[in-house]
Amino acid sequence: MTPYLSLERLFGRLRSLNDAAGILGWDAQTLMPTGAAEGRAEQLATLRGLAHELLVAPTTADLLDAAEARAADLDPWQAANLGEMRRAYAHAVAVPGDLVEAESKAASAAEMAWREARARSDFAILRPHLAEMLRLARAVGEAKGAALGLAPYDALLDQYDPGLRRARIDPLFDRLRAEIPGLIRAACERQARQGELPPVSGAFPVAAQRAVGERLMGDLGFDFARGRLDTSLHPFCGGATSDVRITTRYAEGDFTRSLMGVVHETGHALYEQGRPQRWLGQPVGDARGMTLHESQSLLLEMQACRTPEFMRHLAPVLAEAFGAEAAGLDPDTLYRIYTRVAPGFIRVDADEVTYPAHILLRYDLERAMVDGDLAVADLPGAFDAGVKALLGLDVPDAARGCLQDIHWPGGAFGYFPTYTLGAVAAAQLFEAATAAEPDIRPGLARGDVAPLLGWLRANVHGKGSSQSTDEILTEATGRPLGLDSYLAHLNRRYLGDGAAA
Amino acid sequence: MTPYLSLERLFGRLRSLNDAAGILGWDAQTLMPTGAAEGRAEQLATLRGLAHELLVAPTTADLLDAAEARAADLDPWQAANLGEMRRAYAHAVAVPGDLVEAESKAASAAEMAWREARARSDFAILRPHLAEMLRLARAVGEAKGAALGLAPYDALLDQYDPGLRRARIDPLFDRLRAEIPGLIRAACERQARQGELPPVSGAFPVAAQRAVGERLMGDLGFDFARGRLDTSLHPFCGGATSDVRITTRYAEGDFTRSLMGVVHETGHALYEQGRPQRWLGQPVGDARGMTLHESQSLLLEMQACRTPEFMRHLAPVLAEAFGAEAAGLDPDTLYRIYTRVAPGFIRVDADEVTYPAHILLRYDLERAMVDGDLAVADLPGAFDAGVKALLGLDVPDAARGCLQDIHWPGGAFGYFPTYTLGAVAAAQLFEAATAAEPDIRPGLARGDVAPLLGWLRANVHGKGSSQSTDEILTEATGRPLGLDSYLAHLNRRYLGDGAAA
Repeated sequence: MTPYLSLERLFGRLRSLNDAAGILGWDAQTLMPTGAAEGRAEQLATLRGLAHELLVAPTTADLLDAAEARAADLDPWQAANLGEMRRAYAHAVAVPGDLVEAESKAASAAEMAWREARARSDFAILRPHLAEMLRLARAVGEAKGAALGLAPYDALLDQYDPGLRRARIDPLFDRLRAEIPGLIRAACERQARQGELPPVSGAFPVAAQRAVGERLMGDLGFDFARGRLDTSLHPFCGGATSDVRITTRYAEGDFTRSLMGVVHETGHALYEQGRPQRWLGQPVGDARGMTLHESQSLLLEMQACRTPEFMRHLAPVLAEAFGAEAAGLDPDTLYRIYTRVAPGFIRVDADEVTYPAHILLRYDLERAMVDGDLAVADLPGAFDAGVKALLGLDVPDAARGCLQDIHWPGGAFGYFPTYTLGAVAAAQLFEAATAAEPDIRPGLARGDVAPLLGWLRANVHGKGSSQSTDEILTEATGRPLGLDSYLAHLNRRYLGDGAAA
Repeated sequence: MTPYLSLERLFGRLRSLNDAAGILGWDAQTLMPTGAAEGRAEQLATLRGLAHELLVAPTTADLLDAAEARAADLDPWQAANLGEMRRAYAHAVAVPGDLVEAESKAASAAEMAWREARARSDFAILRPHLAEMLRLARAVGEAKGAALGLAPYDALLDQYDPGLRRARIDPLFDRLRAEIPGLIRAACERQARQGELPPVSGAFPVAAQRAVGERLMGDLGFDFARGRLDTSLHPFCGGATSDVRITTRYAEGDFTRSLMGVVHETGHALYEQGRPQRWLGQPVGDARGMTLHESQSLLLEMQACRTPEFMRHLAPVLAEAFGAEAAGLDPDTLYRIYTRVAPGFIRVDADEVTYPAHILLRYDLERAMVDGDLAVADLPGAFDAGVKALLGLDVPDAARGCLQDIHWPGGAFGYFPTYTLGAVAAAQLFEAATAAEPDIRPGLARGDVAPLLGWLRANVHGKGSSQSTDEILTEATGRPLGLDSYLAHLNRRYLGDGAAA
């Protein structure tokens, strides 16, 4: 067996371990009984620890060196795969195995504490756990930064989005920081001029909402032979290779969020299901990173489905599912409902215009924490001050403030910026897609996503990790990531005449 | 760290891997989308392969030797734990890792083929897979037999029930082979004299059946903080330490099987949940073996719950859940329904009197296959001939013949006898329990299982693997496993006056 093929075998085993952890993680958020949490944490820590041990075994470095010495024998995909293997190895070997297992276990404990802290709106319950997670994240950032020649925060960013750097984010976010508050104000004023929109209310049984969700997932191209829809407190897309599991949560009185949550997670799932089949199970077959991943969920949700076109498909589906309860939900009304702008406390409930404000705040705070400029004890105050400054709101309690997100308790420092970068990429990609494929918008009105999905398969999903994020964007749209399409989209939809969406 | 404590750490990791596989296996049978089967097989093979590698690492033998040299320092539970570690190591090291991983993958493929073969009642679909599984099982049996000084079939038995040997089974099964056909005949004749029993039929919604099942699980002492009830094609008890998941299957027109299936699996689950808490995660904390495991499900189902006493608790529960549909289901009628005897094709649907015939047949056939005396190609004919001889029935198709069970396709040769040995042990244990605790039977009529569960916790569950099966039985009942209680029970219930159950 050549060194390269030995590496493929190793990374195949790592993928199986990672997939196993993916299903166990899904289960923990959907079905697991409460008393199983401690054991599950042990299981996940063991799987992650073993994967780390396998990856950093001395033989791996030898195999990488030997395979790289014979790189001329490899085809371009194999060469890209080898590059991704080296990347994974460099990340892993920088961190001692004890730290990996400690972080996994501490994260499980911190996530449990977070649930209780949020339920009781008591930051003190989380504080020691969060301090420990920050300590571990800083240790990881420093270790990886030293090995990769990066600042600690850049090293953390690189875990979620290979190649992403603070220097790339700052100019984009600086411009958003300047433009978003004015945009929010203007959008709210325009909306006020259009008059009140009655709240959606009625009896929308969970089973019927679930059926509509599954119907739309099918319409949007989700393959149920390789995935599922379930329920969890926090919607997510998880599972394993060839077993992509998305979740949503239901409120009997309002179907709108559960439904658009399903659409959002379906966007993630389509990326997962559309990765290059030949390379599933190898690093080069993975989704490129969280910016492109989020771009796929937001492209589907914000660009394709929160549109007048898609509402024409949705309205009769709702009428059939909910009968009289859906009366009055004509396409125009649905479009207004689904493009409402209102500053609020909760990131995951935020509309498209206020959402970046939530991210700008978290980006500032997590950088400051990782840099040692903000202590965990001072987080609630800093968080509340940021919400006041960016959204003009007074945070009433910690549950609606710095306790609302699981990311930091879970150890995910460096993840938040990819949400807004994803929104930016989504606008850029959709603009290019609709320019290249004139049938995409008419297709959405028919509930036919094939023209859009075909373009995404060819230009994003099918590329796996064979190119960088900016290379993929440049080939697909003619330029690297930039704000023009995104700001044009927001201005058109929220400040324009409303017709063009 | 002492050698013994290093071993505890190693076996803790192995338990986590095993628990992870347990949840993944549960998921595969309950929720997994069809297209995920291949990946799941890889995941399970990887977990099992890694667990094997960890266990047979050269350091393990050194640690075992060193710990055994200092065994005088250990308390009795630690000493028993060390003995179980040695046992696990001896089993594992006898088999090369390639064979372990090959068996896991082949079993996944064979189980998939079995599903199709059974659905189409076509043995040819399964045949090559079953031949491969037999080949692998024989290779395992020979390798372990050589290492442990056992015949191959004894080595396979020992995997499921430590210490179980063919020489222990044969005299018991020979007597059953002599007695069971007469018992079946006599029971059927007596039943015919009692007159026809109308079939249970009605509309019993799955949700209501499920609610009754969960209600009874709670009554019987199941801890829902450490387990779940779900649905699968084949009922089973699986999951992980502190996460015991049982399943049943539902038919809208007949609640009786799903419900007693829940009771049966609850018996398994109570054993799992009642293991010694201090030793969970270590080998000595495990259930002792499949004979005692099956004894716990059958003790609950056959000895405790298929009784006039329990029917007095069940009847009002059914009336509340099913309303008018449960009319006529008074305790006496329920008892007659739940003690009907009728030779049939399907083992899992068999009543208590005909069940041993199914096991005697499978025991004969699997021994012959492992010994090389029966080729896989000849299995259908031999199976059908055995059904004719033992039950007097002509097998109409392979689905109702040798394709009905997953055990052999899954590689489980040497497992079947534990079902009937479990039934035998159940009768012996229940007789001792009711003699020691006079409130057990009256408790069942009140739906109060505490007196029974207390006795089982003290005499079986809480002992884990600290003693052998016969030691546990002898301490609990005054004698090792024997047929007297079992045959007395069958004669009393099926040939007696019916009042004593």
